[in-house]
Amino acid sequence: MSSQSELIAKKARAAGNILKTASGENRSQLLYKIHDSLKANADVIKSANKLDLENAVKTNLSSALLKRLDLFKGDKFDVMLQGIIDVANLDDPVGVVKMARELDEGLTLYQVTSPVGVLLVIFESRPEVIANITALSIKSGNAAILKGGKESVHTFREMSKIVTETIIKYQDTTGIPDGSIQLIETRDDVANLLDQVDYIDLVVPRGSNALVKNIMNSTRIPVLGHADGICSIYVDEEANMNEAKRITLDAKTNYPAGCNAMETLLINPKLKNWYEVLINLNQVGKVTLHVTKDVKIEYLKVLKDLNLQESLESMVVDIDEEKEFDQEYLSLDAAVKFVNSTEEAIKHINTHSSKHTDAIITENEEKANMFLKGIDSASVYWNASTRFADGFRYGFGAEVGIATSKIHARGPVGLDGLVIYQYILKGHGQVASDYIGAGGQKAFIHKNLDIKNIKL
Amino acid sequence: MSSQSELIAKKARAAGNILKTASGENRSQLLYKIHDSLKANADVIKSANKLDLENAVKTNLSSALLKRLDLFKGDKFDVMLQGIIDVANLDDPVGVVKMARELDEGLTLYQVTSPVGVLLVIFESRPEVIANITALSIKSGNAAILKGGKESVHTFREMSKIVTETIIKYQDTTGIPDGSIQLIETRDDVANLLDQVDYIDLVVPRGSNALVKNIMNSTRIPVLGHADGICSIYVDEEANMNEAKRITLDAKTNYPAGCNAMETLLINPKLKNWYEVLINLNQVGKVTLHVTKDVKIEYLKVLKDLNLQESLESMVVDIDEEKEFDQEYLSLDAAVKFVNSTEEAIKHINTHSSKHTDAIITENEEKANMFLKGIDSASVYWNASTRFADGFRYGFGAEVGIATSKIHARGPVGLDGLVIYQYILKGHGQVASDYIGAGGQKAFIHKNLDIKNIKL
Repeated sequence: MSSQSELIAKKARAAGNILKTASGENRSQLLYKIHDSLKANADVIKSANKLDLENAVKTNLSSALLKRLDLFKGDKFDVMLQGIIDVANLDDPVGVVKMARELDEGLTLYQVTSPVGVLLVIFESRPEVIANITALSIKSGNAAILKGGKESVHTFREMSKIVTETIIKYQDTTGIPDGSIQLIETRDDVANLLDQVDYIDLVVPRGSNALVKNIMNSTRIPVLGHADGICSIYVDEEANMNEAKRITLDAKTNYPAGCNAMETLLINPKLKNWYEVLINLNQVGKVTLHVTKDVKIEYLKVLKDLNLQESLESMVVDIDEEKEFDQEYLSLDAAVKFVNSTEEAIKHINTHSSKHTDAIITENEEKANMFLKGIDSASVYWNASTRFADGFRYGFGAEVGIATSKIHARGPVGLDGLVIYQYILKGHGQVASDYIGAGGQKAFIHKNLDIKNIKL
Repeated sequence: MSSQSELIAKKARAAGNILKTASGENRSQLLYKIHDSLKANADVIKSANKLDLENAVKTNLSSALLKRLDLFKGDKFDVMLQGIIDVANLDDPVGVVKMARELDEGLTLYQVTSPVGVLLVIFESRPEVIANITALSIKSGNAAILKGGKESVHTFREMSKIVTETIIKYQDTTGIPDGSIQLIETRDDVANLLDQVDYIDLVVPRGSNALVKNIMNSTRIPVLGHADGICSIYVDEEANMNEAKRITLDAKTNYPAGCNAMETLLINPKLKNWYEVLINLNQVGKVTLHVTKDVKIEYLKVLKDLNLQESLESMVVDIDEEKEFDQEYLSLDAAVKFVNSTEEAIKHINTHSSKHTDAIITENEEKANMFLKGIDSASVYWNASTRFADGFRYGFGAEVGIATSKIHARGPVGLDGLVIYQYILKGHGQVASDYIGAGGQKAFIHKNLDIKNIKL
């Protein structure tokens, strides 16, 4: 007998197989309809959201979390609705011809983008995310199973109901079937779904480190996302001091809890007045610096000379090197270490970074290129803040997440990460045994065609 | 304390980080040197291979396996050597600029191909594969840990020694370090390496179904490959009979043990003289047909009418539908089922196929397009034999394997499957907090640049 999770996963697979064949126009049309339905039902959604907020107050949720739960705070609901339209209006990521090659006369091979298939998307309690994920999934032709944080259960349930009703209502005109978007509610369901490797193609967890790590450790289904964002900046001896100060300050303090915030500062002590970078972080950024022994000795000496010891010393603490180079602070704290060369910086970063985003500050192009080539992270920067690592800043229109794995999609991931490709071969009765290598005499011609002129 | 496997994996990671920075020219140069060393040491390799062959005879290995073990049978050794040169001469898959975009003036984002990192490649006893994998790994800038079948252990050990010595000898000129290619010998090592998710990025198993399935089930590291190749051909009522006969015969009999061989024939009984396709497979192909009940009744009736019952009846057997639609025969056997429409064929294939390669035979373009869009397999064909699903036939120059997963790389995989990308951002001191969305007023310009003119 099939389990409940297997039934959900099977239903998603069946829906995905049909959704895959819907035209880009119909996928966008459905998103406009979903936009309209959510807008028309704002009142019902608001009531459900109120219920969630009341329950949250009862369970003494923090004010930060309450703010997240409140879907009607400021223009949040309208921004969410506009987001659906924005995604609907993006170029269709499906059916794009990436390669066309004549294998022989009348035997042509095409590589064409196609949906990944079935997504399992797990996110926390922000109610607007359900609209965002629905839009991304349908736009990219993927069926999705959604699981949101339990604090927003009533809002999710109401919104999901409206989405499902809209899908069913327009099923005959769009060709997009019921089951394309399914909501699940309990943690048990997630655990069981993570076993459905035959039906689910990709897990997209959006949320806390702990959530993502836990998911990565409990499934054999590929996971698109990131747990840690341990980003480092190396300030070279040939750095422009003004840039070094501005960039490190921005990277650490613009949004300290962001996954693209600087956690480690590697600084070359041969840089003239290197300590200005640290003083700037201490004074302007109110950043506590977790420093190695040699940094501490040198820095405290400078602070004493500059009569800054009293005001800044409390923001200089000893680092536990065994631990702190491999963790995120997610706060106004940064690890600081001396490194004596670009090579040493590269080695430190390739050992300790989470392969998210790392930067070098230098005026020396040769060293910059060595760094850009040598660092094995999804994003590698020269003279820019790590905070630019973001799908919208990269110009992707939509962000699915930020991935730190080494295959499929890396760094900020747009709709491209939700599609893959298929090979389409169109022939006229050709068989392999006529060709060299399979018993025959014919040779392949392997002539590449200009994909600009090809529409399948 | 680190385990032996962890040390091997760490060494590979460290080597990969350096190999990643080597120029394409140096990577190819090293391959020429490896070619020369293997050629110069043909005698030592031959002695080792002789030892393996003698041991194999002692353990009563089948003659088919003995043939595989013999590296000096015919021109096998020379073909192997030429293969290294061929890979060395391919275009460099690393450092290719795929996208360039001005985020703002003086702030430019590049998407550039880069090696995946560290590969664990597991293969069976064909000794020439070690040269092939070494070439593919180094060409694509990846460090590799290799494990070959135990029957060829002496040959592998000798060849690996020569490869390692060559890498070390030219390390100073190529910049490619020791540890870039490592051989491991025992099964225990493999099991432990499959746990090294922090150091190994991709597992590439090449070998039997059982081997691949076992690996896929025992690691959280992504696996590039395929277990089953359950390929189906749907012969539509509007098929050209001659093409239907030729294609199904080729797909089943050209190499029945191939993963791209036809396992299931779906035939529309409305096709005039549909039974000719079956008679052709029986008579010409000597294929045993495993048929559903309705096919059996109709086909035996025809055979009787045509006076063929006596000669062919023994090649018509009852199918166990529960089992046989989901398995490979890998022999001169095929499952046969009536389907009444393209939709029904699509549904059967999406349910039972292993997402490898499936084909439709029809003269009706509309039905063909429905099939090409609806089938969720890596390769989908119209009027061509499934046997074309092969890296060399697709014109990839080299084949890493055939993948049936839904992400990263699908179908026949060339060097492209061993690279991924990084984002490189070059700035002039820009910080996120100056821009809209992070507290500032500046807007991004997001202007795409023509990648033809860009060389990083």
